[in-house]
Formats: sequence, C-alpha cells, structure tokens
Amino acid sequence: VTDSTSTLTTPALVVDRPTFDRNRAAMDAMLPGRRLRPHVKAFKSTAMASVLRDDGHPAFCAATPREIEGLVAAGLVEDLLLANETLDTERLGALSDRALITVAVDSDTTLDAAVRGGVRSVLIDIDVGLPRCGCDVDVAGRLADRARRAGLEVRGVMGYEGHLMMVHDRSQQRERVEAAMAILKRAHDIVGGDIVSGGGTGTSRVNTWCTEIQAGSYTLMDTQYDELGLPFDKALSVLATVISVNTKGWIVADAGLKAFGMDHGNPSWDHGDVLFCSDEHVTLSPFELADWAVGDRVRLWPAHVDPTVALHERMWVVDGETVIDQWPVDLRNW
Amino acid sequence: VTDSTSTLTTPALVVDRPTFDRNRAAMDAMLPGRRLRPHVKAFKSTAMASVLRDDGHPAFCAATPREIEGLVAAGLVEDLLLANETLDTERLGALSDRALITVAVDSDTTLDAAVRGGVRSVLIDIDVGLPRCGCDVDVAGRLADRARRAGLEVRGVMGYEGHLMMVHDRSQQRERVEAAMAILKRAHDIVGGDIVSGGGTGTSRVNTWCTEIQAGSYTLMDTQYDELGLPFDKALSVLATVISVNTKGWIVADAGLKAFGMDHGNPSWDHGDVLFCSDEHVTLSPFELADWAVGDRVRLWPAHVDPTVALHERMWVVDGETVIDQWPVDLRNW
Repeated sequence: VTDSTSTLTTPALVVDRPTFDRNRAAMDAMLPGRRLRPHVKAFKSTAMASVLRDDGHPAFCAATPREIEGLVAAGLVEDLLLANETLDTERLGALSDRALITVAVDSDTTLDAAVRGGVRSVLIDIDVGLPRCGCDVDVAGRLADRARRAGLEVRGVMGYEGHLMMVHDRSQQRERVEAAMAILKRAHDIVGGDIVSGGGTGTSRVNTWCTEIQAGSYTLMDTQYDELGLPFDKALSVLATVISVNTKGWIVADAGLKAFGMDHGNPSWDHGDVLFCSDEHVTLSPFELADWAVGDRVRLWPAHVDPTVALHERMWVVDGETVIDQWPVDLRNW
Repeated sequence: VTDSTSTLTTPALVVDRPTFDRNRAAMDAMLPGRRLRPHVKAFKSTAMASVLRDDGHPAFCAATPREIEGLVAAGLVEDLLLANETLDTERLGALSDRALITVAVDSDTTLDAAVRGGVRSVLIDIDVGLPRCGCDVDVAGRLADRARRAGLEVRGVMGYEGHLMMVHDRSQQRERVEAAMAILKRAHDIVGGDIVSGGGTGTSRVNTWCTEIQAGSYTLMDTQYDELGLPFDKALSVLATVISVNTKGWIVADAGLKAFGMDHGNPSWDHGDVLFCSDEHVTLSPFELADWAVGDRVRLWPAHVDPTVALHERMWVVDGETVIDQWPVDLRNW
C-alpha cells in the first residue's frame, strides 16, 4: 500500500507511524524488555503487537479470552496474561500446549474454573483501591495455596491502580500509587512467585514497585491521556470527509459516534469546535468557515483510544499523508 | 439453535423476540407499508430487515454506503435510500442495475458526485432545524433543476428533525415538528416528486406530514427512547457474567464500554445501580449483595441502541431464556 490518505474510504482510523515509533522509543527507554507487558486491549492488533515483540517485549497482557486466542493464532505465544477474571476458561485451556497462558483469579469460583478449563498458571488479583476485580490481601494466601494444591503454577500477583491513572499532579500520583502498591507488595509477600504486575500508561512513569507494567495506550494515545504530560504523543486519529457545509456556521463530516469511543466525550479538532456527534456525523464549528468545502478531509482526535479502535476493522499506517501499511484490528469481538 | 442463554459467550447482545414482535405490530398499526421506511442504521442486520420487509415494508433507509451494499447483497433491493450525503458514490452507482438506490444531496458537490458515480435518483435534503446536513429551501429548487438536467430522477425531499426526537411533551413535540415540516413542505412544493421523507422513532407518533417515516430504533429500543412513553418496549439487552463479587458492596460483570454505546451514558440494571464501565467490565452496586455470586448472569439495558449494536458481531434472538436464532450484525463497518 503506497497510496495517499485522500484515497481512503472514510471514516478511516489512521496511525501516524513516526509518532508511534517515538512513543515506542520513549517507553522502551523507561521500561525495557520484560519491565513492560504491553496491553493489547488498547490497540487490538496482532500486527502492532508483533512490532512490540520485536522491540523486546515478548510478554503480553489481554482483557478477553478472544484477545488471547488471537495472540496465539498470530504466534505471539511466549507469555500471555489474561489480566482479568473469566469463567470461559476452556477456550484458554485448549491453547495451553501452544502458549504460556496465565489467568488472573480473585475467588474460589474463578480459580476452580481455571483448573476445570485446563489453565496451568495464575496470578492472584488483588484489590488495590479501584472498585473492580481483585480480592483482599487476607484472601490471597488461601487462594494461592489452593491453586498450588490443584497443581497450578502461581506466578505472583497483580493489582490495577486504575483509579490513579488520571491524577495530574505527578508527586501526588507517585505517593498514591506507592500506597496502592504497598497493598500489592503485602499480598506478594504472602503469595510468592516472580511477578508483581500492575500499572498502565497513566502511571507508567511513577509505578516503580511492579516487576512489570501493563500499558497499551502509550502506543497510540488519546486526548485524555494527552493531558497528563506523558512522554507520548497522539498517534491515532480518525480521518473523515466533509459532506456538508452550512453557511450559517457549521460543517459536517462523515465520522460519528460509531467511529469514536464516546465514554470520555467528543473527539477534538485542531481547526475549530466539535459541536456534537450523531451516529455517522460530526458537526464542526470551524474557526474559519470559508476555509472549508465539501470533499475536504478533516482529522479528529479520539478522547479514548481503546473503545475507538474496537469500532474499526483496520488501522491505516501513514507517514504524513502517505499510506504505508494497514494493520487489521483482528482482536475485536469476544 | 435451541440452547439456553446460559450457554452464550458473554458479553452477548440479546433480542427478546416476543418484545420485538410487539414493537413491529405497534409500528405497523401506526405506519403500515410504505408509510414506514425502516432505518437499518439502528440494527445493522439484513436478517432483521428481511423480517420487516415481510411485514410489508420493502423500502429501507441507510446511513452509509456500506449499509446499502449489504442490503443489496441480501436481496433487499426494491427501494433503498441513503439518507445521507456522500462523495463515495461509485460504490452505489456500481449497484444501480441491481437495486433502486436513491441518495440525499444538499450541495452542488454532492449532486455532482452522485452524477459522476452513476447514481440515478436523489432526494433534496433540507435543513429543518437540526444543525447537520440539509440545504436551505431557497437552494432546493436550483439543486433539483440541476439534478434533472443531469438526467437524474428527483424523487422528492427529506428533512430530519433530529433535534425534536427527545421532546417529552407530546403536544409541544407535535407543534415543533409541524413547524419543522412546514419548512420541508415549502421545499417539496418547489422540488416536486412523490417523497417527503423524515422523522424517526422519537417523532413517529406525531409526524403526520411526511409521506414516509425513517424509523429504526423502535424495533429494539433503549433506555433513552423508553423515557418517551412510545408504544414500544426495550427488546435489546446485553447479557454478561458476574466475574467478581466484593463483600465491600459491589459486583463486576464482563460487559464494559466496548459492549455498550456510551454516548448516552451508562447502561441500566434492574437489580441495582451501575457504578461505572471500564473497557471490559461493569461495576454494579446490587440492592442485595447476598443475591449475587460469581458465575451468575446479569442483563443490562443499553442507553443507545444504534452504537451498541455496532459493537457486536451478532444478535442472539431469544424467547425468555431460550435461544431461538442468531442474526449477524452484517452491516457494520464502512
């Protein structure tokens, strides 16, 4: 593929390759090799995961059994962590001869499901303050013992401090992450194993307590993470075509709320305000209406990378306005 | 397929067939035959569209060229309206020997694109008050003349009063829709043709000025439309599995913001509060925590049907807890 972006059917999900490459380099300087366990839920593409593997990050993190299946199918089998509880464990057990698959457990029921499904190794998932999955520290030892008695390898612990990702003040963030990770460390002292897994793009600079950080959004970024002043830039945009210009002051492009994850709000535009999104439209109020004509292309910045990517079949990899590759979003669905 | 819903991989998009059937009957009583042009953007399934065709609604409405292509591939060719502007007209022209395809135009540029792409008939799209596509009435006649000179059939006008869908007071809604449709009628008097197309589920009871109403959401409904007191009930839900129970007061299920269109906010749950959605989780605060265990299934009601459906590969059609069919969501992507 060596076309111009002007030939792409819109809406088109576009990755700026130079920015993506700078984001990789910045992360590798901070968290080389196994210190980073890239989280594929952010980008849902085995083509992109392969680039990260070749950078020296062979261990991956996933949020769904489907993502694990896709990674295995792509040969990314060295060390896969389902950083999530599931009862759908037979799909994972069926792949255990082809890949090292580890699953998070936080209860007897999820542990029993892992055993029954043929999963061979687990992390004990600890509640470190985000009201989501994870057990209390005083349950962790019992779960680890029970897992070992059932013949599973207990590789360590994980705990996701998701509630601290968007703390803007860096020293305050470091303090609060330290407190959350102290809970995880107590659990690790009880559970044992080599792995203390946690973190994300938002805490990747300050979380020095985990043996590995589960970050994925740093590759592509979004307008929300961009507020944090991380050493990563927005590489992901949605290209749309202007289909209507209204002299009363607005233009309409053909990318709407089916092309953007909307949970963090509207996408952003460098040349004016985003008024609202409809299913397949975005209504824009340009700084200079006269600059815009039907047929022009606009580039919009998603507010949240993960659910935006999940809406698209493929990412077009570009350098400036030249399309240099396409990456299927092959880890979608469940 | 005659399984129980308990065997479905979650998150699963589920359509309650009896409710769907009642919604169809209620709409058919109001808008029989050609009075309704079902809008496929709401449900993105040719299997469901075929049911509506068999009910006597052979004319469909779409929001994207991809939806038109899918309808043609499924043999639903009798009368397809792209109720949207596009410059991607060659894909439509390529199907013009197999289907009657009409496209909305609101500018010289979109009209020229229709001619160039081999599209044979158009509606003139009129701005009736929603800041989106549509031209002013005083432009409509010139566009219609220009279209006819280019050899196109001008079938009439369309105008979407999307800003009035959620007016809760019915008599106020009728008044405001009447005013919007007066604009459309003025345009129709100038443009001519048989079609005056507009409306949606939210105005389907009060818009008596259009020859046809573009409604799709009535089939499945969502929590937002449910507030209006329309004669339709929620037929669409997302089934999820409880993967974690925390004695501090919450449970977690495996359907998150990648399983729900989030632009109208969180989904709803009949048995407690929805605290927040993460990518693949929803954290729920049940009225009775003791009622819930890991492995239980929960049913969540989406806030917005269209973008929710667009996130899923298929809909499972159920009657109670019996799975009776599956409908591929085959009109996704662009």
